[in-house]
Amino acid sequence: MSNILDKVNSPLDLKNLSVDEMNMLAGEMREVIIKKVNTTGGHMGPNLGIVEATIALHYVFNSPQDKIVFDVSHQCYPHKILTGRKEGFTNLDKYYTYTGYTNPQESEHDLFKVGHTSTSVSLAAGVAKARDLKGETGNVIAIIGDGSLSGGEAFEGLDNAATLNSNIIILVNDNDMSIAPNSGGLYGNLRLLRETKGQAECNFFKSMGFDYYYIEDGNNIEQLISAFKKVKDINHPTVVHMSTLKGKGLAAAEANKEGFHWILPGTLDKNNDSAPAAVENYCTVTNDFILNKIKSDKTVFAISAATPGAYGFTPEFRKQLGAQYMDVGIAEEHAVAFASALAKSGAKPILPLMSSFVQRTYDQLSQDLALNNSPVTMLIHWGAISGADATHLGCFDIPLISNIPNIVYLAPVNKEEHLKMLDWALEQTEYPVAIRVPFGELVSTGVEDTTDYSQINKFKVEEEGSDVAIIALGNFFKLGKQVKEKLGFNATLINPHFITGIDEELLESLKSNHKLVITLEDGVLDGGFGEKIARFYGNSDMKVLNFGAKKEFTDLVPINELYERYHLTPDLIVKDIQECLSLQTV
Amino acid sequence: MSNILDKVNSPLDLKNLSVDEMNMLAGEMREVIIKKVNTTGGHMGPNLGIVEATIALHYVFNSPQDKIVFDVSHQCYPHKILTGRKEGFTNLDKYYTYTGYTNPQESEHDLFKVGHTSTSVSLAAGVAKARDLKGETGNVIAIIGDGSLSGGEAFEGLDNAATLNSNIIILVNDNDMSIAPNSGGLYGNLRLLRETKGQAECNFFKSMGFDYYYIEDGNNIEQLISAFKKVKDINHPTVVHMSTLKGKGLAAAEANKEGFHWILPGTLDKNNDSAPAAVENYCTVTNDFILNKIKSDKTVFAISAATPGAYGFTPEFRKQLGAQYMDVGIAEEHAVAFASALAKSGAKPILPLMSSFVQRTYDQLSQDLALNNSPVTMLIHWGAISGADATHLGCFDIPLISNIPNIVYLAPVNKEEHLKMLDWALEQTEYPVAIRVPFGELVSTGVEDTTDYSQINKFKVEEEGSDVAIIALGNFFKLGKQVKEKLGFNATLINPHFITGIDEELLESLKSNHKLVITLEDGVLDGGFGEKIARFYGNSDMKVLNFGAKKEFTDLVPINELYERYHLTPDLIVKDIQECLSLQTV
Repeated sequence: MSNILDKVNSPLDLKNLSVDEMNMLAGEMREVIIKKVNTTGGHMGPNLGIVEATIALHYVFNSPQDKIVFDVSHQCYPHKILTGRKEGFTNLDKYYTYTGYTNPQESEHDLFKVGHTSTSVSLAAGVAKARDLKGETGNVIAIIGDGSLSGGEAFEGLDNAATLNSNIIILVNDNDMSIAPNSGGLYGNLRLLRETKGQAECNFFKSMGFDYYYIEDGNNIEQLISAFKKVKDINHPTVVHMSTLKGKGLAAAEANKEGFHWILPGTLDKNNDSAPAAVENYCTVTNDFILNKIKSDKTVFAISAATPGAYGFTPEFRKQLGAQYMDVGIAEEHAVAFASALAKSGAKPILPLMSSFVQRTYDQLSQDLALNNSPVTMLIHWGAISGADATHLGCFDIPLISNIPNIVYLAPVNKEEHLKMLDWALEQTEYPVAIRVPFGELVSTGVEDTTDYSQINKFKVEEEGSDVAIIALGNFFKLGKQVKEKLGFNATLINPHFITGIDEELLESLKSNHKLVITLEDGVLDGGFGEKIARFYGNSDMKVLNFGAKKEFTDLVPINELYERYHLTPDLIVKDIQECLSLQTV
Repeated sequence: MSNILDKVNSPLDLKNLSVDEMNMLAGEMREVIIKKVNTTGGHMGPNLGIVEATIALHYVFNSPQDKIVFDVSHQCYPHKILTGRKEGFTNLDKYYTYTGYTNPQESEHDLFKVGHTSTSVSLAAGVAKARDLKGETGNVIAIIGDGSLSGGEAFEGLDNAATLNSNIIILVNDNDMSIAPNSGGLYGNLRLLRETKGQAECNFFKSMGFDYYYIEDGNNIEQLISAFKKVKDINHPTVVHMSTLKGKGLAAAEANKEGFHWILPGTLDKNNDSAPAAVENYCTVTNDFILNKIKSDKTVFAISAATPGAYGFTPEFRKQLGAQYMDVGIAEEHAVAFASALAKSGAKPILPLMSSFVQRTYDQLSQDLALNNSPVTMLIHWGAISGADATHLGCFDIPLISNIPNIVYLAPVNKEEHLKMLDWALEQTEYPVAIRVPFGELVSTGVEDTTDYSQINKFKVEEEGSDVAIIALGNFFKLGKQVKEKLGFNATLINPHFITGIDEELLESLKSNHKLVITLEDGVLDGGFGEKIARFYGNSDMKVLNFGAKKEFTDLVPINELYERYHLTPDLIVKDIQECLSLQTV
């Protein structure tokens, strides 16, 4: 039997295939996706679910003349395979050649770099409007997963796309799942539409003004082709709602949809019986804390915004939280406003968010939360300079959060501080508090932290010295210690604890026997922590060197390369310090 | 005839009124609202439309045990009158006593400080969840105008509120208007529901999972009371959709809904024949520019997000823009993503946004726009330290925008620079560009600006001097000139043009004959422009003083008081400079 995939190098190669051949192709694509993702790690379930739809799309439509806009784009692997990037999945040596998301630099078939969800409809509306302004033709197709529909941007996009008066096709890939199970009122309507095969009169998409088509089996190539042919070149905004099976074709992924949304390398090779022993980390200690609190206080309430796995909220843990937990879905804006009102009404909400996703809720942090001074406890995870792809960088949360009035943003450096800060944040009623959960391996002193964190902006002098003071924030406290050791004289080492303000008294006192203050922060320098210190000393003879990341989007750059680039190694920092000091003595 | 309003000092005083008396009360309230708003300026139409509903709410429900959460809260004047703050409307001397929005510091009947739209449902959901956690009872009512429904946060709130499984009542005040006429697919459904008296099967709210009630005449107290009694103490999420007349009872406001959404003092006293002569200002010159561009280039496209009046997009101007203009409604997230895709597809979008509302779209600025490097032209209006209420401050846009990679944020200081920057932004294809439109009276040099803005981060030395360099950004360039004059020696005056980066070469060169650099910015210092300069000089002998606002929410504090507080007058700045210089010579 000949291999179909071998012959498919571009969407054009699909045009003469029979349905049988396309089905064979789907099987072959699935095989290489499973093998590749199990080797490198990555999004498994979302891609397996959309193989047939991607084939049918490229069969019926003519990309890149017709424009396909992916949402979040973690379901673009089949698309990549069909648009000239097959080798990234068939050739072990090329497994790391292409990113996990759409990328216009890789292919003319990719329109945008996207990694955050809920953006495809707005983006497609802009593509369609530009087409109309220029008097061009062609189809514009937005693909959006059901989980992404709960995001406010998707709704705003739908509300506007519905009024475009020209061709725009929204393909809703409904697999009845976000990363975790869906929640939200809208999902009741999707269920109703699935159950009635799209016939129910009460239809969310129709209520928004869309024409509406339903595909019962979104993994059936014939059904898909038939529906896509009906809507091709349609002259008004249209939703095509298809029901697909997340993880299709991989029994383990079909059975455990959440676990196989994204997997680590080698997941399929592991023996199920040998579950890894629970290792203590910042998630486990946080979650133990939450569980204890919840048992003794019925007003403690944990919220997740669709990514519970990112902070160790396993299905088992969620079960233990019971009615004192809610996953609000991809809806960070709601999560913050909801938490603010809970706090203002006397409850004690805990809201973990990933650094990269905090970005979606700036206004709510400012207006709903900070302006009302609601005592919410937020946990910011994955806040760090990293080798992540450009869409999931965790280095911007400090400028974002710390320049909003009223919020207290804390940076613990070990388990004991983290737990003490958590406890203080949860039990106080004066401030919105965010804690930047340490990134990396757990550090424990074994000694209870007795700091009184109600003394806002009080820095801690860990080791008193002279000449040079090292203010080492959060994740980079360890780096600060290394720098001190390498310097070879007794520099002062400061753990500032607070990101949102400065300890003016302490900084003032350093002037008497220090010439240089350096700041270390695990994030972008612009608008960050160190600049506040530089501003403070602007008027004085104190020299200041700020160490952190440059303001730039980096894309899968290895972390050590970034550390070199930003001078974030002990050697490079010491060299910069010595240069600065030698300049002064000249 | 006795005056009912005289006897009403709290919601309790309504309980024994007859419907006739409540109707009389509505008339009396309308009268004082019209008089007060015409005297002080403020929101007119929204408040006139909701008088009856507010009376009926306080008649049926028992605030503050029952919790009423206002959206945007610019329709809270009747509520303020009924909850002990009547004098703010009846007594000329107290006209300025109360803010234009809900404020918990004023009354136990106000739950949150809110000024941005689309927040009430999420906030109410939190209030309801806290009630349930604490085992309490009572109704939680969110009031939301139809215009606010288009905001993503409102949708996220609805999607989650629908799943609460307990009492939450969403009162949708549908007057068929945002500030400007509504746009968006959802409004077709609201129209259908109005036309069918709530009977249409295809129902947006039902599709989200809500129970649904319709009030045909939302200005009819009997109908309102009857409906509110039906939903009082209901045990599941419910929407009450009422049709009201914006501006009800004031002929001019009923006829000109947009013009009377918010009015200036004395609007009703003006002779309609004596329209003010068109005075050139930054809005008119911007809009003349846009109009010219649109005539010659069919790909130029202007976008507004529900506040066209704030940047002088009058109904007449919008008509002239024709098909090259779209109001996307209260949907800033969509606006930015939409504009990004337009630009990426070869069109030339222009997107004006108010400083305070840019906050709602941080993630889209970062992910949809900056990461894709889409050449959108944004105009940031009302970016300035101001005496505004705490919910509409314009001093946070610099930290918000300028710390995102790739975006070029420009600060013109006069008409000629503004127009040159606009033209450059629109015609280049390399960067997302935002222009901070000067705030205040138009300044014109009469000389064409020939700067090449493609030389990114190139500052302009306006007047060369020595010892002290004044880097005066945007609105504060004039202040910089005043400082220079007052200093009495030849200081250097620099107009930086660029907010997002620094001119390292120039800053380096200043070291040779300057001891002090001061920065002036019309915004909050934390995370802002001046700190980047302070960081640059941290390693050198150059002293730096940053002038700008403190990181705080101010609420209707007179601007001159803020200037004193922040040392933003020529006298105070000169004094600080002299102190700094004298310290150095000691």
